[in-house]
Amino acid sequence: MFELNLKTHKKTEFIEITDSLQELVQKSMVKEGHLFVYTQHTTAAILSNENANGGAIWKDIGEALEKIAPQEKEYHHDDGNAHSHIKGALIGNSKTFFIHQGQIVLGTWEGIYLAEFDGPRQNRRILVKITESQ
Amino acid sequence: MFELNLKTHKKTEFIEITDSLQELVQKSMVKEGHLFVYTQHTTAAILSNENANGGAIWKDIGEALEKIAPQEKEYHHDDGNAHSHIKGALIGNSKTFFIHQGQIVLGTWEGIYLAEFDGPRQNRRILVKITESQ
Amino acid sequence: MFELNLKTHKKTEFIEITDSLQELVQKSMVKEGHLFVYTQHTTAAILSNENANGGAIWKDIGEALEKIAPQEKEYHHDDGNAHSHIKGALIGNSKTFFIHQGQIVLGTWEGIYLAEFDGPRQNRRILVKITESQ
Repeated sequence: MFELNLKTHKKTEFIEITDSLQELVQKSMVKEGHLFVYTQHTTAAILSNENANGGAIWKDIGEALEKIAPQEKEYHHDDGNAHSHIKGALIGNSKTFFIHQGQIVLGTWEGIYLAEFDGPRQNRRILVKITESQ
Repeated sequence: MFELNLKTHKKTEFIEITDSLQELVQKSMVKEGHLFVYTQHTTAAILSNENANGGAIWKDIGEALEKIAPQEKEYHHDDGNAHSHIKGALIGNSKTFFIHQGQIVLGTWEGIYLAEFDGPRQNRRILVKITESQ
Repeated sequence: MFELNLKTHKKTEFIEITDSLQELVQKSMVKEGHLFVYTQHTTAAILSNENANGGAIWKDIGEALEKIAPQEKEYHHDDGNAHSHIKGALIGNSKTFFIHQGQIVLGTWEGIYLAEFDGPRQNRRILVKITESQ
């Protein structure tokens, strides 16, 4: 099991971790298999989407989630971060990818991201498992 | 493959299954590996989120999903549970977790839940696979 | 690793791929294990839901997603398909299923679908991994 640690800077932020994950795949020596990415925070999430175009799509994704769960709204959960938990529940904190010829299989403009929904935080921990399989 | 069977009591309900899953992990003797949780119902789902604070966050998650797919609305699918299917599709009926030192890896206040979106039901079936991997 | 290639015909479309996946499971000779399904497109997704009732539920799922991310709206991402990326991010482009006695484990009326959110497209590529495990 590998670990990545990230500092986040804003309330809502999407930080690309594709390169860090690819380094772990190299380190693991696995050529064909699976990459499992999990973050043990319920106000953060893991997802993949477009990593081109200056990141404009991530503003749109953030705004769509904000429309579903606005920060400025009364919730039952009164820690002030109910909106972050709802966003985390919708996106999910664990995702599975494939490894082929030692590379993470991704679309041409696809990157893997940590979604921060309750930042800034000193340390968001991401756990990674890499397994071999044909 | 293991199986859990749950009775649900309300239309929308989130039932924590972390302890039952941890018992299965013990039973499997797996110390390092993966826990795959799947429910074969398209009006239910599996997800993890906060299990502290008296469960207030689950009311908020339920209400956010209800806003997206209100029970009282006309749908094409006329069984009266289209809203339940939509909620299930958004959350997903299968999730993957890690096992480390014989324990499910979870955040401090993170628990795993069955989401019931079309209860009450006599029996919701959850299937569980536990595999070994470094 | 197996590959499926699909042609899509509409902007938003849900195409059942259960039978094609079951054929791959047969081909793999795996009797007990996992089926991992991934599509390397960030404007498409993989999900399972009801495959009975003439597909009415898929109209409802499409409309619920359209309410969250309307096609006719201004977005930061200016390729005209921001709505497709948002829908893809919410549903996710990778899902895991179980194999038992050589069959994909699914609910009675559950099927696995490719969700097209930015069609029509000549070729949507779906990658499939099938692994053995008790």
